[in-house]
Order: sequence, then structure tokens, then C-alpha cells
Amino acid sequence: MQMKSVAIVGVGLIGGSIGLAARHRGVAERIVGVGRNRERLEKAYLLEAITEIVCLSDNLAAALMDVELVVVCTPVGLIVDQIRELAQCAQPGTLFTDGGSTKASIAEALDGPLANDCRFLGSHPLAGSEKTGVAHARSDLFEDRVAMITPTDNSREEDVERLAAFWKALGSKVIRIAPDEHDRAMASTSHMPHALAVALAASLPDEFTKLTGSGFGDTSRLASGDPDMWQQIFLNNQQHMGDSIRSFSQQLQQLADLIEDADATALEEYLTQAKKRRDALGS
Amino acid sequence: MQMKSVAIVGVGLIGGSIGLAARHRGVAERIVGVGRNRERLEKAYLLEAITEIVCLSDNLAAALMDVELVVVCTPVGLIVDQIRELAQCAQPGTLFTDGGSTKASIAEALDGPLANDCRFLGSHPLAGSEKTGVAHARSDLFEDRVAMITPTDNSREEDVERLAAFWKALGSKVIRIAPDEHDRAMASTSHMPHALAVALAASLPDEFTKLTGSGFGDTSRLASGDPDMWQQIFLNNQQHMGDSIRSFSQQLQQLADLIEDADATALEEYLTQAKKRRDALGS
Repeated sequence: MQMKSVAIVGVGLIGGSIGLAARHRGVAERIVGVGRNRERLEKAYLLEAITEIVCLSDNLAAALMDVELVVVCTPVGLIVDQIRELAQCAQPGTLFTDGGSTKASIAEALDGPLANDCRFLGSHPLAGSEKTGVAHARSDLFEDRVAMITPTDNSREEDVERLAAFWKALGSKVIRIAPDEHDRAMASTSHMPHALAVALAASLPDEFTKLTGSGFGDTSRLASGDPDMWQQIFLNNQQHMGDSIRSFSQQLQQLADLIEDADATALEEYLTQAKKRRDALGS
Repeated sequence: MQMKSVAIVGVGLIGGSIGLAARHRGVAERIVGVGRNRERLEKAYLLEAITEIVCLSDNLAAALMDVELVVVCTPVGLIVDQIRELAQCAQPGTLFTDGGSTKASIAEALDGPLANDCRFLGSHPLAGSEKTGVAHARSDLFEDRVAMITPTDNSREEDVERLAAFWKALGSKVIRIAPDEHDRAMASTSHMPHALAVALAASLPDEFTKLTGSGFGDTSRLASGDPDMWQQIFLNNQQHMGDSIRSFSQQLQQLADLIEDADATALEEYLTQAKKRRDALGS
């Protein structure tokens, strides 16, 4: 896939990596970085993640001329309003997508045509880490990683195909999934691990901080993620998070019971099954 | 510290790394590897983790002649019986230690003199990973890592000092801690993270295995650990594990309540506090 121009709104870890990957792989000639903070955009420009700097206070209509795809990589709580506003300045028919970690509330709010006949179709690349900011952006962040596209009944097949081609061009394996199913899956595979890491870090008694090793480090690593970003993700996936926390708590209680009952055989069987499931995922 | 001979019983990741570190740092000339399985000992010998192979069925009295320190690195459920048996073949006054992840039950069982006036003093190096076996052993495994020594009221100060000097010579930072206090700390910092990783891996729905990313990977990594080893650790730290699981479950419930109540400010504050605690630990 080759485009003339793509715009990236919010050039942090994900937005910056999209810019770098698009540049390295020749996916777009012109990569317009859009944001609130000029200093941050200049950093992204110096790192060659974008080829052009546009502040939200600048002339957006001029900046979005010729832009075929706008990728909004801001925190999930901002995406809907930003896309509605940007559509007002976009060329007719521009396709908008995002990189947000929740999809149902965003897809619902943006379903159907936007201003200037622009259209929205959600995406979520399964990449990123507890690190944030364009300084950690990498051109290979999406290589061989899953990128999800979340069409609704109102999505156009041509948009789905264009967006899939875009993520494939960045190196991703593309999966189509309904927005709510996406959120249910992410509650299990991403938001729940984050909640556990956070609660584990919060439950560590001060007196024992010097006695943590690499095991505690791995299991709690996600707690270093951005609190503002994760507050929005959790609140945007409230229902499924509730289900996942309940389901996890039952699993943990089952394990606690096996320990309390000193049931060595059943405990080893439980640990063996968990090991099988974990080993199947790779490192 | 320099010794003529040290014996390592159970030459896996920890035992093998002790052998490699002792050799690389000139801590002992002769490193006797003791075990049940000759093939595994031969592997350790080829990797130069030990200088001598002794099977438990061999003449142990001859093998333990001149050995000043015996380090038992077998699973926690085997340590007590093995040390009692080995003491019968050891030189009078030999010091025994271990590398087990729980200390209270072992220290209690081995408190006071053993056969041949041998003595036990527990240790626990905070090192290791979900990987097992001598193939993963490293001479720098203990460098700048904490090694705990767990004296009881009956321990001799000279033994504590010798054992501390041994771990320091392998590169460790040594901390003295009472056996039960050790187990309480490890429940929080090591066994609880393991339980969470295991329950997380166990709670992953099959349908979502392809949608896991590096976050799920980090948080569940410990579940790949050896089930037999961890069954024994959990059962040897039953009481404190029960307390830790209850305390963690309360933390998780608190987080679940903030999400359910959609209390954005309090949720962000919770996440910010957890991030501070996690960031303070380093990578």
C-alpha cells in the first residue's frame, strides 16, 4: 500500500512508531504530525517520525488537504471529540481510525457518517509497553504483532480493506473483530494483567521493597504505565473489566483453597495446567 | 573468602550458578557436585559448574572429606531429609546451608546440632527465574542481588559470618533476617507474584490466546516455572500465602470498586500511587 499523505494525531509511542514504520516502509510520502504541544511534535520531527508539524491551533484544513487517512493516537477518552472536530476540517471522504485500547464506546459514538462525509473505522495495534513518549517509538513496533480492526454493521468493506492494507504495510498481522468482542478480549488479555500489576504494586509493604526480585519486577511491570491513559481505558471498559476481575478472583480463590487444604496433587495439577497455557504463548 | 572444598547438592539453575560463580571468583578449588542423576551431573561438569561428580549412591563419606560447606539446592520439600542424611557422612563440624525459597519449616526442623556435630544455617539467594536446569546457570547470577541468611537463636555467630562471607564472595549483598520474617516477606515479594501469574495464565480463555501481547506475557511469565518446585514452596509457606492472597484480593477489590463507581479522580490517584511504588523498584 502506498499513500501520498497520512496524518497522525498524538505522536507518542504508538503514533511515533506508526510514523517511523510508515516512513521506513515507504507507506506514505508525507506524514503530518498533529498535536497540542509544538515542542513534542518537534521532538517527533527530529526523530523523523513525522515530516510535518501541525498544531491543533494551526490551519487544520490546509494541513489535512490531500490526507487520505487520519490515525488518532491520543488517550481513549479524547478520541471521539477529536475525530468529530477534525472531520470538520478534513477533505470530504477522509477515513479516520484510532489506536485506542478500547473500541465499543468509540465505535458507537462515531458510527455513521461524520462531517464532510468522513468515516471512522477503529483499529488497535497490540503493541506498546509501559513506556510512553515518542522517544521510545520504534519503526519495528508493529512487525509480526496483531493489529485489530473493528468494523460495525455500518462499516464499508472498502474501508476495512484499505485499513487492513495499511496495518499490513506496517508489518502487522490483521484481525477483524467486533468492537464489543474486542473489549471483552482485551479485558482478559490486556486490561486484567494491567489491573493485577497495579494491585500487586499497591499491595507491596514498604518494609519489603528491598526484597523484590525479577519475579516481582515482571509481574508488576505494567504498573509503571501512564495513570491518566489507564484510568481512561479502565473506565471505557467497565463492564468487561468487572467480569474479568470476578473471573480472575475465582481462579485465585481456587488456588488459595488448594494451598490452604494442602492438596499437593491437585495443586501440582493446577500449576501444571497453568504452565502449559503460559508456555504455549512463548516468551 | 577462600575454601578448599565446597559441595553443591542439586546442580540446577541455582546450584550450577553457585558452582560457576565459586569457580570464576576463586572461592573454592574443589566443587563437588552431588545428585541423584549422573547424567545431569555430567552436564554440570561439562559446563564447568563443578569439578567432581558424586552420586548419592556413591561413597559420600569419601566425597565429603575436606568439604567445609555443603549447599543444598534441591526443592524445598527435600532439603530437611537430605541434610539429615548427608550429615551422617560429613566431616565433624561441617556447615550446611540451602538455597530454598522458604525458610521457617526448614530452620525449625534443622535447628540444633545434626549428626557429627554438623550445623545448619539457612540461606536464600534472591535470584533465579522461570527457567530451570544447569543449562541456564550463570556465573553472574548473584552479582548485586540480595542473598538472605536466616539465623535462629541457636545459630553461631561464626557460622553466620562464614556464610555471609561466602555469599559476598559470589557477588551478593547479604541480608540477615529471621526465618519466619523471611517467609512473610517472600509471600509478598515472590510467592504472591507467582500465584498471580499462575491464576492469570489459568484464567485466560482459549479463544483469546492469539490476542495476548507483551503485557500479558510479562504479568504471567512466572507461570512457566516448575510446578513441582512451586507446589512445595506454596505448601511450605501456607500461612503467609493465605495472608498475602487476602491482602491482595482486598487491593484488587478496591481497584474494581473504583472502576465500577467510575470514580475517575480516585482511580487515577490509585494508579499514580501504584506507579510510584513500581517505578521505585527499577526495571
